[in-house]
Amino acid sequence: MKAIVHVMLKDGVLDPQGEAVRHALGSLGFGGVQAVRQGKVIELDLTATDKTAAEAEVKAMCDKLLANTVIEKYTVEIA
Amino acid sequence: MKAIVHVMLKDGVLDPQGEAVRHALGSLGFGGVQAVRQGKVIELDLTATDKTAAEAEVKAMCDKLLANTVIEKYTVEIA
Repeated sequence: MKAIVHVMLKDGVLDPQGEAVRHALGSLGFGGVQAVRQGKVIELDLTATDKTAAEAEVKAMCDKLLANTVIEKYTVEIA
Repeated sequence: MKAIVHVMLKDGVLDPQGEAVRHALGSLGFGGVQAVRQGKVIELDLTATDKTAAEAEVKAMCDKLLANTVIEKYTVEIA
């Protein structure tokens, strides 16, 4: 079973990496970019076969390791 | 208009970051993880109003800046 986790900075948290990308895009001539936010995507191959259990386990992984829940939000997608 | 870009290492390209995450998850007691691959997700707020034009522009951004197409693949989603 495959899980896809998206980790993004929470709204309102400054994203210097995204801002750097926006600036670089502007320098390359891509003017129509108002804002950029950059996050992580993590693809996990799981041995679990139960979807509900897998989702709960991946959420625990996010809380413990994959995301810093003080400043980051995450979404879990089980495929 | 919002664009979401996923950038992942191509299949077969070694992903030491993902491997480190897999190992760390194992150390935390999450044994059922066979493989981990980590990539980037980039959210762009665009001034463009035409979906086709926006998609073409974002693909140009990926080729020029956002992805290293030698080792990375990307997908563009216009929302």
